[in-house]
Amino acid sequence: MRRRKKAGSKEKLLSHVEYVTDTPEKCKGNWKQEWFKNDNPIHLELGAGRAAFSLKLAQKYPDINFIAVEIKEEVILPGVETAKELGLDNIAFVWINILNIHEIFAPNEIDHIYLNFSDPWPKKRHFKRRLTYRDFLKKYSEIMNPEGWVEFKTDSDVLFEFTLNECAELGLPMKDIGLDLHNRNDLDEIITTDYEDKYVAQGKRIFRMQFRLTGLK
Amino acid sequence: MRRRKKAGSKEKLLSHVEYVTDTPEKCKGNWKQEWFKNDNPIHLELGAGRAAFSLKLAQKYPDINFIAVEIKEEVILPGVETAKELGLDNIAFVWINILNIHEIFAPNEIDHIYLNFSDPWPKKRHFKRRLTYRDFLKKYSEIMNPEGWVEFKTDSDVLFEFTLNECAELGLPMKDIGLDLHNRNDLDEIITTDYEDKYVAQGKRIFRMQFRLTGLK
Repeated sequence: MRRRKKAGSKEKLLSHVEYVTDTPEKCKGNWKQEWFKNDNPIHLELGAGRAAFSLKLAQKYPDINFIAVEIKEEVILPGVETAKELGLDNIAFVWINILNIHEIFAPNEIDHIYLNFSDPWPKKRHFKRRLTYRDFLKKYSEIMNPEGWVEFKTDSDVLFEFTLNECAELGLPMKDIGLDLHNRNDLDEIITTDYEDKYVAQGKRIFRMQFRLTGLK
Repeated sequence: MRRRKKAGSKEKLLSHVEYVTDTPEKCKGNWKQEWFKNDNPIHLELGAGRAAFSLKLAQKYPDINFIAVEIKEEVILPGVETAKELGLDNIAFVWINILNIHEIFAPNEIDHIYLNFSDPWPKKRHFKRRLTYRDFLKKYSEIMNPEGWVEFKTDSDVLFEFTLNECAELGLPMKDIGLDLHNRNDLDEIITTDYEDKYVAQGKRIFRMQFRLTGLK
């Protein structure tokens, strides 16, 4: 049985006009100037869930604009409320199917993408559903600054292996490959997602890498 | 105290003239025609130890010439004796420091390299000793057919992560990246080393990848 949405959640969400819009397609090509009123780079978190990760980043980096993308609108509300409590002016929230992101972002509009703990679809026959499958990567490249990087984290060795091989086969530049991020890394601080905190507490290994979408268009 | 070499082992080794030579530098550029008397590709195993891996491959692939390279001459003898028992004519054994391989092989003479379970040198300050450090990769490229692949296996996630990052930073083509070879692979059969059999029995994870040395010269 399909889970029922909370009654009135969409109306509540849309009341936060400084963080969400019902017509994101009108912002296409104009997110910096029209929405954020600045010329700072835009970082996108795809499949952001409650956006705990983007909210932490938005606090830490006031000179970057963050957009949390999530398919389920009812998931977004708590993040929006947190952004309001914190008084953040460098974060927005959109709900959209990732396959349609080109409808709300223009070519080169996005400077960095985060992909955190997306569904690994571990069964081999489901590989085309993985968010690092080449068709998705091509989709991201349609909106991405070609100099930008996709930053990818997962606890799934199946998904990480798949992603390494997709990038290798497509000849994409890679960097910062880490097979056990929380036990061996060169970063000053690891910004975590809620899932990540849970996995790390369970002693799970976290994989991480960055890749560029060069030459995919 | 330094371990003493077995008395007479070098003489015994050199008595097997169909498998070893005291002057491998004389074969430089002529391994196929002069040594193996054929035009088959040459596959090199670097740090071969007792060469159990190369011996298995030599039996399985009679149309490939194998050369097992090991720094310690006293380690080689059992492998040579096994080759003789099996009547193999497509394998040779050389002892040499890997830094000097250009003295015994000519440019483009080698078609494939295996690097199996080399010392991970896990301490960060020792990274330049790892056999996938860029200076070693450049050394291999001096003797390698540019179309050839280096096939690399290890049980060390430190060494595997390092190798992925070296290849990524150098922009080397990669393929067949596997984070758990014995539990998830597409190969018909995995040819194992002695170490590998032991590690797999202990439930250890085996990492594997291939990379090409393009553009390093």
